[in-house]
Amino acid sequence: MATQGKNSGKYPNERLSISELASNFNEITGWAIGIDLGAQSIRGAWVSPKGQLYDPIKWETKVDEGKEKVLNRMAGLVEELLKAPPPGVDPSTDLLGVGFAVPGILHLKKGLVVQSPHFPDWKRFAVHEKLKKKLKYPVFIDNDGNASAIGEKLFGVCKPYDHFVYLTLGTGIGGAVFLNGDIYHGSLGMAGEMGHITVDPQGLPEATGNRGSVELFASASGLERVINDLKEKIPGFNADNAEDLFELYKRGNKYEHFEAVEKVFNDMGEALGIMLANVVNTLDPQAICFSGGLINAWKAFSRKMIQITMERSYVARHNKLRILCTTLCKNSNFIEAGVVGGASLVFIDHLRKLPVDLSEKNNAPKLKMVPPATAKVGA
Amino acid sequence: MATQGKNSGKYPNERLSISELASNFNEITGWAIGIDLGAQSIRGAWVSPKGQLYDPIKWETKVDEGKEKVLNRMAGLVEELLKAPPPGVDPSTDLLGVGFAVPGILHLKKGLVVQSPHFPDWKRFAVHEKLKKKLKYPVFIDNDGNASAIGEKLFGVCKPYDHFVYLTLGTGIGGAVFLNGDIYHGSLGMAGEMGHITVDPQGLPEATGNRGSVELFASASGLERVINDLKEKIPGFNADNAEDLFELYKRGNKYEHFEAVEKVFNDMGEALGIMLANVVNTLDPQAICFSGGLINAWKAFSRKMIQITMERSYVARHNKLRILCTTLCKNSNFIEAGVVGGASLVFIDHLRKLPVDLSEKNNAPKLKMVPPATAKVGA
Repeated sequence: MATQGKNSGKYPNERLSISELASNFNEITGWAIGIDLGAQSIRGAWVSPKGQLYDPIKWETKVDEGKEKVLNRMAGLVEELLKAPPPGVDPSTDLLGVGFAVPGILHLKKGLVVQSPHFPDWKRFAVHEKLKKKLKYPVFIDNDGNASAIGEKLFGVCKPYDHFVYLTLGTGIGGAVFLNGDIYHGSLGMAGEMGHITVDPQGLPEATGNRGSVELFASASGLERVINDLKEKIPGFNADNAEDLFELYKRGNKYEHFEAVEKVFNDMGEALGIMLANVVNTLDPQAICFSGGLINAWKAFSRKMIQITMERSYVARHNKLRILCTTLCKNSNFIEAGVVGGASLVFIDHLRKLPVDLSEKNNAPKLKMVPPATAKVGA
Repeated sequence: MATQGKNSGKYPNERLSISELASNFNEITGWAIGIDLGAQSIRGAWVSPKGQLYDPIKWETKVDEGKEKVLNRMAGLVEELLKAPPPGVDPSTDLLGVGFAVPGILHLKKGLVVQSPHFPDWKRFAVHEKLKKKLKYPVFIDNDGNASAIGEKLFGVCKPYDHFVYLTLGTGIGGAVFLNGDIYHGSLGMAGEMGHITVDPQGLPEATGNRGSVELFASASGLERVINDLKEKIPGFNADNAEDLFELYKRGNKYEHFEAVEKVFNDMGEALGIMLANVVNTLDPQAICFSGGLINAWKAFSRKMIQITMERSYVARHNKLRILCTTLCKNSNFIEAGVVGGASLVFIDHLRKLPVDLSEKNNAPKLKMVPPATAKVGA
């Protein structure tokens, strides 16, 4: 569980922010295992002290087999990884811990998944407790959005920022708010649920009780619903998911139903723009960072998204808002930042508990930051 | 300007949060003058160390006379108050400073009003600098929402909370986000602009570039537009402003156009509910607190607002969200919390600069908090 900064006097760096700890990332001396739980797949890997993935594994989640079996598979994937550590790495001495990035609303203090839209039987499910019993290494857990945001701050495109909003466009929309150098968890650990922001008040009803949330327009599950509607309206419409849709989009006007496809991505961009404008008006962040499978279709939706954000938020027009994509997937075939995110929960705890006083190190010349060139819109 | 917590080593309490400072409010030894700038009126008063107003004054703002004259009137109101201090109070020794609560988007670090919807000629206006030159006492400035939230934390209904959202329903909608015991100002001091959250994407266009924001439905200026529409549709419809409308509402079914009036307040409640659900999903706060003139009509809009918030936000259903009204106007004919808020900017700076180490005092038994009875919905 991500530690929050009450100083017990036990460790010198207990009250340092994630930003302050992250600027000392070169002090990380061990490896971590990161696990990213998604509705379709569980992905995991050994993650190096520099944030690089070693031989990632992907298993099916099989949500419908029930929560205990999913949990066994999460632990099983860790065991699998333990059998094949990177060359020269000995789990018993070099593994700092295992970090899980989990979707849904977490009660962090109690280590529960309170509710998770794509895991219907996960209600107040004691994930942290149960995983601790199954594994003999330190176990950390956080919401997938929070974990990915921490990973992005440690190793990715968000290094230069102390105030940013993180959004994962996957099966659903995961999110995190990183404020004043730390994840803002909210009063009970439920902050960052921006996927449930209303962008169409009269829109379709959802399992959460809301209607017309941005998730209906800009997540893989939402787009599948839209695609099914198109299939009913347009005979022979040949797409099953967001990936197929983007392939059709790339064919441009050559494709006979291009207008219908373009409208789906325009609606996605507009929904994301309304949501971003709301969030930017509330939080005045320096940057918004996107990850998740749907950013593959960046070219199809981002122009409209940025236009609507700027039109609808005068804060965005004034504060030089940067809109970015994750750089955590560079050396991997994984698009998700969640695996590095899970591992980063371990690394941050490791840095916090180092016996060296890192706040003094912070007074030394600043570490080299990610150059602005990698931080432009749509980078 | 509100100080933010970088420790220069000059004062022992520099890095304490507002929450930590506020729990020592009995250490305040002087008075402050608080000034609340609104689109219609400038209000000001001496504020006691216990947060009570002494002989408040209200002047017209006269926005159309231009920014320099408005600024002269703000300073003039301070001079007026200095001429008539409370009995036994000597301005030269007992006045800690003057705090201004100002509407609009502020660039706090530069002390500018960047833009203010109801003050069209205030664009990057150096309010702090100019007021400092006009007054011989320490001058503090913050957004009216932020200032009121600090006042509510020091002396009002938000005393028990470290995570809350503050909304002022006045001519426009002012707002503040109070997170982890401090005002969250955002990267440039523009956070808290929740009045511009979109609740009706196809709604009427606004000066800010957005359309269909909550301010159109739930602020005095927004309601006046709605009332004007009703006057055109319903001959003899006898209301000019929100106050008149609430008087008609109180007549209930006896009033022939009650349904039309009820619909306005239902729309207001629905708009506020959509906005609150968005904010609660993003921030998971412990409480939402309302102030401003329109809370006089609480009975007309709050039921719908709470219903919609709970329907649309599962975070709100899980986190025991409290929805509250200001208690800062109890001993005054003022409904605005902004005057106490302005003064509270002074008090917080005073506490921060005390030579006594207040963090040690925080280890002593906790101060008595506002009992839960005053903190229920609609209290």
